[in-house]
Amino acid sequence: MRPLPIGSRIGILGDGQLGRMLGCSAAMLGFDVVVMGPNEDSPAGRIAAHNICAEYTDKDALAELSVRCDVITLEFENVPVPAVQMLTDMDAKVHPGKKSLEVCQDRHLEKQFSQGCGVETARYWLIDSADTLNAALDELDGRGILKTRRDGYDGHGQVRLSTGDDAGAAYEKIGEAPAILETMIPFAGEMSVVLARSTTGEIVAFDPAENHHKNGILHRSIVPARFPADVQRRAVEAASRLIEALGHIGVLAVEFFVLEDGGLLLNEMAPRVHNSGHWTPEACLTGQFEQHIRAIAGWPLGPVTRLMDVEMTNLLGDDIDGHFGLRGPGAMTTLYGKRDARPGRKMGHVVKRLNP
Amino acid sequence: MRPLPIGSRIGILGDGQLGRMLGCSAAMLGFDVVVMGPNEDSPAGRIAAHNICAEYTDKDALAELSVRCDVITLEFENVPVPAVQMLTDMDAKVHPGKKSLEVCQDRHLEKQFSQGCGVETARYWLIDSADTLNAALDELDGRGILKTRRDGYDGHGQVRLSTGDDAGAAYEKIGEAPAILETMIPFAGEMSVVLARSTTGEIVAFDPAENHHKNGILHRSIVPARFPADVQRRAVEAASRLIEALGHIGVLAVEFFVLEDGGLLLNEMAPRVHNSGHWTPEACLTGQFEQHIRAIAGWPLGPVTRLMDVEMTNLLGDDIDGHFGLRGPGAMTTLYGKRDARPGRKMGHVVKRLNP
Repeated sequence: MRPLPIGSRIGILGDGQLGRMLGCSAAMLGFDVVVMGPNEDSPAGRIAAHNICAEYTDKDALAELSVRCDVITLEFENVPVPAVQMLTDMDAKVHPGKKSLEVCQDRHLEKQFSQGCGVETARYWLIDSADTLNAALDELDGRGILKTRRDGYDGHGQVRLSTGDDAGAAYEKIGEAPAILETMIPFAGEMSVVLARSTTGEIVAFDPAENHHKNGILHRSIVPARFPADVQRRAVEAASRLIEALGHIGVLAVEFFVLEDGGLLLNEMAPRVHNSGHWTPEACLTGQFEQHIRAIAGWPLGPVTRLMDVEMTNLLGDDIDGHFGLRGPGAMTTLYGKRDARPGRKMGHVVKRLNP
Repeated sequence: MRPLPIGSRIGILGDGQLGRMLGCSAAMLGFDVVVMGPNEDSPAGRIAAHNICAEYTDKDALAELSVRCDVITLEFENVPVPAVQMLTDMDAKVHPGKKSLEVCQDRHLEKQFSQGCGVETARYWLIDSADTLNAALDELDGRGILKTRRDGYDGHGQVRLSTGDDAGAAYEKIGEAPAILETMIPFAGEMSVVLARSTTGEIVAFDPAENHHKNGILHRSIVPARFPADVQRRAVEAASRLIEALGHIGVLAVEFFVLEDGGLLLNEMAPRVHNSGHWTPEACLTGQFEQHIRAIAGWPLGPVTRLMDVEMTNLLGDDIDGHFGLRGPGAMTTLYGKRDARPGRKMGHVVKRLNP
C-alpha cells in the first residue's frame, strides 16, 4: 500500500469516544474523516467532515462509505464481520481486516488463536447448555467465570460462580448464549500492551500499562506498570507475536493476567485503540490515536518515547459533574461529548502526571 | 462567568488551521464547535459540528452563530470589530472582546497602548502621504520600514526603505493606505510570549520562544529561547501587563525584538493562538489550543509545564510533499488539511524534540 496522501478521507465504523479521538488525530495529520455508526448526534459524528447515520450492515450506507473513503477503519470491535466483507467486496480498503475481527469477537477462537501463537490462556470449557455447564463446574469445585463467547464488554455477559450456585440460573442470566467457563485465575495483577503494526509489518509497542478494574470496568491504568521488567518484556513479545499472526494493521490491545510467579495468561484482545492506552497522547511523543491513523494510512509509525510517569483514571457517569473545577496541577482531562451521563457510562478520563 | 458546562457549543470566527486545532481541542474537552468563516470546504469547517459559510459581517449569519453558541471566539485577528459589536448587541458572549481586536488591528493604537503599559516599541512616524513619508525619512537617513497600520500579516503590507529609495513608489506599493514608518531595529533576536488569561483574571504564560523568520514568515521557533533568563522573565512580565491591561480573555501572543543590551521592544501582538506556540501541545501538559478553550469557557487554566526542549519548523507550500516519509525519531508532524499547497502557504509544522 502506498502511503495515503494528505487530504485523503478516512472512514471510521463506530461513532463513540474512540472515533472522536481517532477523528481529531486524523484531522491533525491533514486527513478528512467520515464516520458511520447507528447513533444520531454521536460523539464521533459531531467532529466528522461527513456523518453516515446507519446500522453497520446497511448495504447502501456501506456503499456510500466505500465511495467516500480512501481507507476505512473501526473503533468498535463488534462491527459485524459481514459489514467488513461487504466493504471489501466493494473494493474498499479496510484496516484492520476480517481476521482480526473474527478472532477478537469470539472468546473461544481468541483463546485457540492465542494458544496457537504460544501465548497461554486460562483453562476453559465450551458451554452450550446448563448440562455442559454443570459438567464443567464438576471439574472445578463449582467455581469459575461464565462468559458469553460473543458481545461481552465492560463486564457484561459474565457471571461469577461459586460452589453451590445454580448452573441453570447462571446460564439463563447470560441469555443462554454460546459461552465458555473459565477457571478463576489467582492473578497478581492485570497488564495490557497497546501496540501498532504498519502496512510494511513494522511493530511498535507502547510501554505496558498496569490496569485496575472496578465492577468489570477499567478504573485506572498506571505506567510504568509495577511488574518486573522481564514480565513486561515477555508481555510485549507475546503481544508482538499475536499482532503479527493476525496480520493486523493498526492498533491492537492485548490484556494479560500476571500470575504470582510472573507467568502471563492472555485475558483478551481488542482490535482497536483501547481505554488502557488513553494515557499515551499526553505522555508519549505519538499517542495511540495518531499511531492507529498512521498505521492504516500506510505511513511510518511514530516514536512512542514516554516523557513522564502517569496514572489514567476513567470518569464514569456523574464523575464528570463540575470536573473542570477539580483539575489539579499535572492533571489533564479529556471529555467525550456524550449527551447523557448515565451511571457507569464512560464520560471521560484524567491523565495525572506522577513524580513530577 | 460561570464555567461553561460540558456539551456547550463554542463558536469560532475564522475557518483556517488555527480554528481546526482549536476545534479539535474543544472537542477533546467535551464541547461542540460551530465554525463561521468565508471559505467553503475549509480546514476548520470540516471538523465542526456545524459550519456557517459567510462573510464575517453577514448579519443573518452572525445571528445564527449567536443563537447556536454559548460562547464565541476567534482564530483570525482581522475579524471586523463591527462583527463582534453585532454579536454583543445580540447578547452573545464573545472572548476575547472588542478592545483586544481594536488595539491589535492597528499598529499605531497597538504601539500607543504598549507604551502606555510601560512596554517600549521602536520609534515610528504616522504616514498618510508620500510627503509625510518623505519628512519622516529625512529624520532617519532615508532608512526605515513602512508598514500599513492595518491588515498586515506574514510580511504583507511592508516595504523596507534604504537611503535613496523613492518614497512615492514605496507608499504606492502598500496601496497608499494609512501607515507607519518604523526605525530599523538592530535587534539581536526575536522572542514571543504566548500566554492566557482566564475569566477570573488568572494569567499563565508558556515559556518564551526564540523565533526565526524567513521572507517575513515565521520559519522556526526554539524553546527554551537562547536569551538570558532575566530577559525572558522581563518579556513574560511585559506580556502579562499587556494582557491584563487589555482585559483579554483567551490566549494572546506578544512578539518582542531583543536588543543587544537585553532591552525589549514590542514588535506586535496577536489576540489569538499563535504560530510561535505550535510547539506547546506536544511539549507541555496543556497546549495553547486547549488553554484558549479553557479560558474562554470560564474554566481554570491548565498547567503549562514543559516536558522537553523543542524546535518547531513551519512547512510551507510543497514542503509537505511526501512529508510523512520524512518524520525522523522525535519529530511530530501536524498538517492543516488545506486543499492547495500554494508556494509560501502554511501547510503544517513539525515539532522536533531536542537533546533527547
